Amino acid sequence: MIKGTNKIGYQESAQHAQATYAFVAATLESLPEAFHPATGEEVDQAAQKAAKAFPIYRALAPRQRSEFLRAIADEIEALGSELIERVMVESGLPEGRVTGERGRTTGQLRLFADFIEEGSWVEAIIDPAMPDRKPLPRVDIRQMLQPVGPVVVFTASNFPLAFSTAGGDTASALAAGNPVIVKAHESHLGTNDLIAQAILHAAQKTNMPDGVFSSLNSLGYEVGSQLVMHDSVASVAFTGSQRGGKALFDLAQKRQRPIPVFAEMGSVNPVFILPEAMLVRAEALAQQLAASITLGVGQFCTNPGLIVTIDGPETRQFSQELAKAIEATQAGTMLNQGIRTNFEERVQHLSTLDPVSMLGSRLNEKLPHTVKATVATVSGADFMEHPHLREEVFGPFSLIIICADRQEMENIANNLEGQLTATLMTENHDDDVVRTLFDILSQKAGRVLFDGVPTGVEVCHAMHHGGPYPATTDERFTSVGTKAILRFVRPVAYQNAPQNLLPDALKNENPLGIWRKINGQLTKDPL
Amino acid sequence: MIKGTNKIGYQESAQHAQATYAFVAATLESLPEAFHPATGEEVDQAAQKAAKAFPIYRALAPRQRSEFLRAIADEIEALGSELIERVMVESGLPEGRVTGERGRTTGQLRLFADFIEEGSWVEAIIDPAMPDRKPLPRVDIRQMLQPVGPVVVFTASNFPLAFSTAGGDTASALAAGNPVIVKAHESHLGTNDLIAQAILHAAQKTNMPDGVFSSLNSLGYEVGSQLVMHDSVASVAFTGSQRGGKALFDLAQKRQRPIPVFAEMGSVNPVFILPEAMLVRAEALAQQLAASITLGVGQFCTNPGLIVTIDGPETRQFSQELAKAIEATQAGTMLNQGIRTNFEERVQHLSTLDPVSMLGSRLNEKLPHTVKATVATVSGADFMEHPHLREEVFGPFSLIIICADRQEMENIANNLEGQLTATLMTENHDDDVVRTLFDILSQKAGRVLFDGVPTGVEVCHAMHHGGPYPATTDERFTSVGTKAILRFVRPVAYQNAPQNLLPDALKNENPLGIWRKINGQLTKDPL
Repeated sequence: MIKGTNKIGYQESAQHAQATYAFVAATLESLPEAFHPATGEEVDQAAQKAAKAFPIYRALAPRQRSEFLRAIADEIEALGSELIERVMVESGLPEGRVTGERGRTTGQLRLFADFIEEGSWVEAIIDPAMPDRKPLPRVDIRQMLQPVGPVVVFTASNFPLAFSTAGGDTASALAAGNPVIVKAHESHLGTNDLIAQAILHAAQKTNMPDGVFSSLNSLGYEVGSQLVMHDSVASVAFTGSQRGGKALFDLAQKRQRPIPVFAEMGSVNPVFILPEAMLVRAEALAQQLAASITLGVGQFCTNPGLIVTIDGPETRQFSQELAKAIEATQAGTMLNQGIRTNFEERVQHLSTLDPVSMLGSRLNEKLPHTVKATVATVSGADFMEHPHLREEVFGPFSLIIICADRQEMENIANNLEGQLTATLMTENHDDDVVRTLFDILSQKAGRVLFDGVPTGVEVCHAMHHGGPYPATTDERFTSVGTKAILRFVRPVAYQNAPQNLLPDALKNENPLGIWRKINGQLTKDPL
Repeated sequence: MIKGTNKIGYQESAQHAQATYAFVAATLESLPEAFHPATGEEVDQAAQKAAKAFPIYRALAPRQRSEFLRAIADEIEALGSELIERVMVESGLPEGRVTGERGRTTGQLRLFADFIEEGSWVEAIIDPAMPDRKPLPRVDIRQMLQPVGPVVVFTASNFPLAFSTAGGDTASALAAGNPVIVKAHESHLGTNDLIAQAILHAAQKTNMPDGVFSSLNSLGYEVGSQLVMHDSVASVAFTGSQRGGKALFDLAQKRQRPIPVFAEMGSVNPVFILPEAMLVRAEALAQQLAASITLGVGQFCTNPGLIVTIDGPETRQFSQELAKAIEATQAGTMLNQGIRTNFEERVQHLSTLDPVSMLGSRLNEKLPHTVKATVATVSGADFMEHPHLREEVFGPFSLIIICADRQEMENIANNLEGQLTATLMTENHDDDVVRTLFDILSQKAGRVLFDGVPTGVEVCHAMHHGGPYPATTDERFTSVGTKAILRFVRPVAYQNAPQNLLPDALKNENPLGIWRKINGQLTKDPL
């Protein structure tokens, strides 16, 4: 049952005089439950509780934390159809997608549970003492990763489950040993409320300290700003717009003690189609890309927003096929009014520009809360001359760039900003152009794909969902996959520490049986 | 031979109309050679050259880069006594220390050479395709660490070799595959000139691309600011003051594309002495700490600047012994006038404060360019009331805090800012107070030591020379030890990439024979 309260640890709180309401994505009608935005006092209470929970939570054995994570997954599943229906209403996403996203969310929690139970992720390194070394003896030095402290998670509108309340940010922060405070997204207040309750049930069942998790509603930016500025907060995770992410990043740098903000801000995810590929599979490429562009009504941070091609009859055929496939797709409900309005304005503006030719369908007048997918074309030369054409249009839109030749294609690659992904569609992997493009794109993107579409980000060990600015504010970290945990830890070294005080991961006998680096060599052996 | 030029890759350049001069640390007399500060144009040329060198340098096999690093070490040794003498003149440091620091510098270069040759540091992770997985097939995803691009290194006055031109920052940035631009320190312009030449000789001998290394002199802050703001620069490393480090950090966040600044800004490195230790070894502790406080005339970022004790007859004896040992040390030459003046002013100011009692010797009138070490005491209560007493006094100074009891000691620990190190001197490792202090200090510091002194930072795999702000601007990274390389890399994932294009580290057959994580399991096996 949706309660509308703020969850300050195990305590529910509703101090604010005003209320805010969730809405039906498809109609923008308000839903009945009143949600209470957090007051300044409630924000402070949540942060204080997180700070108090931290020393208790970080001291728990990995197995206790992994049981908590698994219990969260179980509690989310136990919400059953109430959750699925609420997500569908609040997001406008279809049932299949929502069920799939729930599976991704619970799978992610269980993956992190397995990951911290296996335990080698703490990167234990031991350089034992060498008392007889000349000219100076070596002391005993050991290090491992330790949690940083309370993490604030800003949830994402476009993945109400997998990148939200119990999503990858929360899962990785909790797995590392940090309390989490979630700032609920106004686009799915009810979903957040249900998931927050599930997390707190799981916490209670597994005896987690009060304050290990809190969830706060907000009106405007105040709650978010106050959280980022709070002295007890050690780190921030955000998925959303460039404007929002950069604002939080700048704010956090102004603190007396600056803290990291891991903002994943999306990108245009260029797809480079080489002529050889166009020659043999123009139609298949058009179908594949149309499906990717319209997936989730284009509201993916990995949506392919630029398609870089070289002029020729096959490319013209491809553009027509893509336009046709896009025309054939149904109008889709956008996550919220802001995203829809922004999409419509951006597409409308692009359609007025001389160098841009609209293909496929336009804005949809019949269903006011939906949009139809759109593609447009521009020449390579015009694209290079108009830097604002590189900006992301969030939604089902893609701009086909028609280059004169391979050199122009290479120039465009060289002039890209940082990207989450870049894709190469080719038939000949020995081609010098392919090699050059691959090298350039490896510098520009966090993930380089061959002959696939960038939407669909596998949750696994090798995934890197990140990339150079402005795709993210810290290209050294990922927000998807097990390495996401590295955002919320820091190394601590211990010198000549007694065995009884050392964390288990660093004790001589290796009681956790983990991989460790001893004198530079990986081993599971005791010391 | 010292040339006084800027080194813009392999080209020497001296465009600036003005000249600047090195000085003798002991007398502040100018040395004869004219050094040319870099002009804006020269800064730009160095950055452009670095950007051009980057794709060539990053594509080299690990063995080529390791040969370059070893050649640098050889060339530094080949400078022989010319280097040692110049460092002594410019820094005022004695021969033994300078020779030792040269050994640390060349050892560090060779350690990184071995480290990248072994190759597992790139953290290769492979999650192979699972075409039959239900409900969706899994694509092939592989990731590894890749260099970020040109790194600017601000050299440190207090380690003219080991934290300077060819120091840990340069060694780790070059090892990772990034070109380096050094901003020479005005306190050892000649030393920088000699080492820069050594690096460039090594680069030429091992066929490195032009621009892999540059060295620029400066007048004031302009060259440094211009480097940090240059669009081709990807990362910055700095060792020095809080004011300097924070200024560069803030500047880098104002760029259109913010970049990381790894500033190691020092700390007060508190040493907690428990009564049991005081009881059995007050005199030995005094000797041990006196040696650490006066090492390198106290100009170590790990200098023990706070000694936290509990009142009692042994503590009073310790204070007297420490004061006596400090009195017995000779006055030392400071690195430069700014550091000396600052030290004198800070100590002078502390001596005027009511709650602070000076022990041991005062300022030295006879030798105007030297200072004498000083210790002072303050009660725990007064220390808590005067937050500015927590600030670092860079030089041979330490403040003994006399707490009323263990609770006050714990409060002081809890109220510390971020530290590079924190030390526990104790006899009883099972004591609850020791356990509590250990847990608190593990949250406050990058390295927690038992029964040793924080000066002396071993260069090894397990070292962490970093710590929470304001000790550094990024607690997740170290500037000493092999993990220092992680500052200058980012993960890149490859999806369905063909074997011929994948970097060797990610090829199926594992041609480098490195440790890789395949399906979550560490192995050296081919795929």
